[in-house]
Amino acid sequence: MAKSIIYTIGREFGSGGRKVGSMLAEKLGIPFYDKELLELAAKESGFNEELFKKADEKPNKFFFYSSVMANYPVANTMLGYNELSLNDQLFLIQSQTIRNLAEKGPCVIIGRCADYVLRDRDDAISIFITADLESRTERAIKVYEVDEKKARDVCIKSDKNRASYYNSFTDGKWGFASNYDLTLDSASIGLKGCVKQIISFGDIYAEYLKEEKSIH
Amino acid sequence: MAKSIIYTIGREFGSGGRKVGSMLAEKLGIPFYDKELLELAAKESGFNEELFKKADEKPNKFFFYSSVMANYPVANTMLGYNELSLNDQLFLIQSQTIRNLAEKGPCVIIGRCADYVLRDRDDAISIFITADLESRTERAIKVYEVDEKKARDVCIKSDKNRASYYNSFTDGKWGFASNYDLTLDSASIGLKGCVKQIISFGDIYAEYLKEEKSIH
Repeated sequence: MAKSIIYTIGREFGSGGRKVGSMLAEKLGIPFYDKELLELAAKESGFNEELFKKADEKPNKFFFYSSVMANYPVANTMLGYNELSLNDQLFLIQSQTIRNLAEKGPCVIIGRCADYVLRDRDDAISIFITADLESRTERAIKVYEVDEKKARDVCIKSDKNRASYYNSFTDGKWGFASNYDLTLDSASIGLKGCVKQIISFGDIYAEYLKEEKSIH
Repeated sequence: MAKSIIYTIGREFGSGGRKVGSMLAEKLGIPFYDKELLELAAKESGFNEELFKKADEKPNKFFFYSSVMANYPVANTMLGYNELSLNDQLFLIQSQTIRNLAEKGPCVIIGRCADYVLRDRDDAISIFITADLESRTERAIKVYEVDEKKARDVCIKSDKNRASYYNSFTDGKWGFASNYDLTLDSASIGLKGCVKQIISFGDIYAEYLKEEKSIH
């Protein structure tokens, strides 16, 4: 049941969302994609991987994804990119990579607006992992081996970038409950707790999919 | 385990959050408080219940809860209210009622900033129930027997009021994932699914409380 699902995981920096995703993928025996996405997108497009890394989840102020999709429907088929800015092209290529991966079957995808890209798929669940800034700073100090000030600054700046990236390329709102199927505070139940809760959600979701879809 | 917890549930109008709460309370055999809170607050304070109903989860633009709590610490003990506006007095009385209920043991409390009022209690979990506007409108038509336009308008207006009320009386942000331990989309898993998820979360939370509290 939970094994039949595609999980997209957005996360605040330092919340352990990436780790939750990799533990989840391992537990369910399905593929896990984080930075791997950039490599795949580079391979598929012929663009240099460094370009994808530079643009990765950073803000793009000039452009609104859905308006482009309306004006350039052909972009969806990976043609006609030339009229777009480089950042926009990278985003659209990466989105196509995400759709290709989803076509292959259940997996876990971290960030990169994957929830938005796959929003029309019934077999995709969108998750967001949050935690209070203090807990995230504490975790960032340990995991990234930096001092408290640096850790705190990185948490705040990264989230600002991620929100900005997400909000400029989608019509959703990063970090709002209404944007996701499930959000979890990792400081409240730990990373293993998050994995358990997501698997339980996946089971319930897969079951509910078979029923009439309304709030009842 | 899940039976040892106080559940506070915020909700978008039409999401079925209230119903989830009552089903949860029934399942766990613990008390449920929604409008009942207003009656209790009226009884405890001697104020007329109608006053509480009028002010219930409506915006209050003149005042910030935490600043009052700093300036009037004595208010916390239900003394010295006279210097505050009526709305502020009602909020503080209601908050005291919520604290009194929490002292008595596990229960489910709907809205009224209960998550914020009880934020320092380790045995309290904050939950938010969301759903897309279309599903909520559809549910509101059925439950409240109104036409589509009315249902949609009530969903939007009520949420605006609830957000405004919450944001003016707390330093949190209504509807943001970071504000809650758990948020769920009831259109994705149904009301019964939400109850199952919350009980699972309660079990994991109670277990995690015993361990060292950090993200690991």
